[in-house]
Amino acid sequence: MGEYQHILVKHDGDTVRITMNRPQRRNSLSADHLAELLAAFRATGDTDATGVVLGAEGPVFSAGHDFGDVAARDLVGVRDLLKLCTELMGTMQSIPQVVIARVHGLATAAGCQLVASCDLAVAAESAGFALPGGKGGWFCHTPAVPVARSIGRKRLMELALTGDVIDAKTALDWGMVNRVVPDDELDASVTDLLARATKGSRASKALGKQTLYAQLDRPEADAYALALEVMASASQLPGAKEGMAAFLEKRKPVWPD
Amino acid sequence: MGEYQHILVKHDGDTVRITMNRPQRRNSLSADHLAELLAAFRATGDTDATGVVLGAEGPVFSAGHDFGDVAARDLVGVRDLLKLCTELMGTMQSIPQVVIARVHGLATAAGCQLVASCDLAVAAESAGFALPGGKGGWFCHTPAVPVARSIGRKRLMELALTGDVIDAKTALDWGMVNRVVPDDELDASVTDLLARATKGSRASKALGKQTLYAQLDRPEADAYALALEVMASASQLPGAKEGMAAFLEKRKPVWPD
Amino acid sequence: MGEYQHILVKHDGDTVRITMNRPQRRNSLSADHLAELLAAFRATGDTDATGVVLGAEGPVFSAGHDFGDVAARDLVGVRDLLKLCTELMGTMQSIPQVVIARVHGLATAAGCQLVASCDLAVAAESAGFALPGGKGGWFCHTPAVPVARSIGRKRLMELALTGDVIDAKTALDWGMVNRVVPDDELDASVTDLLARATKGSRASKALGKQTLYAQLDRPEADAYALALEVMASASQLPGAKEGMAAFLEKRKPVWPD
Repeated sequence: MGEYQHILVKHDGDTVRITMNRPQRRNSLSADHLAELLAAFRATGDTDATGVVLGAEGPVFSAGHDFGDVAARDLVGVRDLLKLCTELMGTMQSIPQVVIARVHGLATAAGCQLVASCDLAVAAESAGFALPGGKGGWFCHTPAVPVARSIGRKRLMELALTGDVIDAKTALDWGMVNRVVPDDELDASVTDLLARATKGSRASKALGKQTLYAQLDRPEADAYALALEVMASASQLPGAKEGMAAFLEKRKPVWPD
Repeated sequence: MGEYQHILVKHDGDTVRITMNRPQRRNSLSADHLAELLAAFRATGDTDATGVVLGAEGPVFSAGHDFGDVAARDLVGVRDLLKLCTELMGTMQSIPQVVIARVHGLATAAGCQLVASCDLAVAAESAGFALPGGKGGWFCHTPAVPVARSIGRKRLMELALTGDVIDAKTALDWGMVNRVVPDDELDASVTDLLARATKGSRASKALGKQTLYAQLDRPEADAYALALEVMASASQLPGAKEGMAAFLEKRKPVWPD
Repeated sequence: MGEYQHILVKHDGDTVRITMNRPQRRNSLSADHLAELLAAFRATGDTDATGVVLGAEGPVFSAGHDFGDVAARDLVGVRDLLKLCTELMGTMQSIPQVVIARVHGLATAAGCQLVASCDLAVAAESAGFALPGGKGGWFCHTPAVPVARSIGRKRLMELALTGDVIDAKTALDWGMVNRVVPDDELDASVTDLLARATKGSRASKALGKQTLYAQLDRPEADAYALALEVMASASQLPGAKEGMAAFLEKRKPVWPD
């Protein structure tokens, strides 16, 4: 994976660390940067890794789209860029690994969207979150999609209409992130939460994660129709068989996948 | 109602108390146990009772599905079990009574789903909640359906992916339960909240409860299309007529239903 | 705009102040009152104003529907009234201006619905919120629609089934309002939040607000399908062009709209 220019990809045991590495551009998401992130998440999805940590180099987590890359594009060009961005967000949710954001500094616009699209998020106290398009000329339409699915409507409206930055503790209170810790405890907290979230059968969890995203934001009966069929099928997979056998035999399970 | 083996059903004034009574099996939800709960809720729905308290005997509220009952089933057998379980959850929401969970000890997997499927929930400080399938071999796909409709997405992901137990105060903070009280105040708090929730016209409230569940998780215009028609029709029912007349005549209403 | 009998409409710079002025009827929402509010919001939508403050005269914000106006209506008559009410709520969300509720005193039933239908809300410490239909004879079916889209399900159930009043701090904790301040700081807080929420390109924000409401409560992929197309198109509008040019040229933007 030495082919990347804008990101660092490091295999660390069962964890893949994908780190945005354009600090001089505040890790803004040019088309090339997005394409590398998408390629790295896709490649990770094909590995046996159980978790992914998405982090960033430099003082800013990510400033969102790179206006230098957007300004010259026509409608078709911007649509292509946003399709690439949306494809990245969907891929983060559909790969079998648990994806956790390691957030320090500001995560704004599509940078905030990245955090909202990770399965889990740990923020340093120095982190901040904003959808600044609302106070500018190009509203954060797509970044608001996953953010809206983590927080309530009035809070979404405030974030999206004002463009103001909320601090990490507010983000925790609103349910945008799972943990807030002092900056020097960020890595330890990410490691701890990821370890907790990657126990058990890998195949079972992959199916679980994908089904969660699929059943959300649907009428409850529709969600059940989906979840029930998946759960019935999943009961016949080796992981489920082993988990139940181990429980009934009062021994530790040995996950087959 | 003396025909039950796994549950206790007691009529207490306007309240029906349905109590899981398999403490030796941690109130796990075998097919027989589920079938009795479903029968009891259906029977209650046909009575004039205004409220149902769902509680449990023993140190654990409910440990969810009974692996002893699941492990030997093939796909069709598990699907039948999950259909029974889902039918129970839907019935709790569709009966005219207000259903309140009285939670002490652990409520895990389908046990946590039971709490999430009650209209209201009061938890003792000793209570805990978990979706442990995420750290095992059989993911909590269907339990996550009603839990997802009470809490935000990042918190759902944490609960479902880690399988960790959250305590009662966290559940309150996240909106999974309505009250947390010291264990020795649990019954008093349940009684108080149920009394508050069962005032007024019984027929009006039954329609209200069912319509709430029906309008959730739909685009707002779709929700309005439903709620508007129900509310217009409901205005012509005896309860609404009496309520408005009493208000205009400055007297106490006498509910006709 | 001197044609109104039940409301006051005042243009104050870029802000339109729409104030319910039936204190002797607790600002209850008769058909005439609703029609005036609807006309005022529609007229405002055609102006260049950037914000609307919805407030009320007298000790009560709004007591909801006027039973004196409802009691004598047949099914068709009530449906017409509720259609008018629902049209008002939708118009508040679809006009280009940012709409902020200035809430003091009680906001109950359709009065609570008004607050939930504003983009933003600031409450005085004296404010309270309730869906009282649940303890009466006519359930708050339609008021629950926007309230359900701001708060979690268990909290919605409690509010709707008990009819109890929650205080302003609880409303803040649950995400129903954006700010709670001492009563004598209410106007200053409304002014501050509205100023923050009305920065930037007016056309961009109008599109943003409408798209937010349209993408909510849909499966995430459906929401993206909508938001992506709007955001791509919006990139070609004068506001977006100016915003990006100003950013790249390191100068202050001059919004063209």
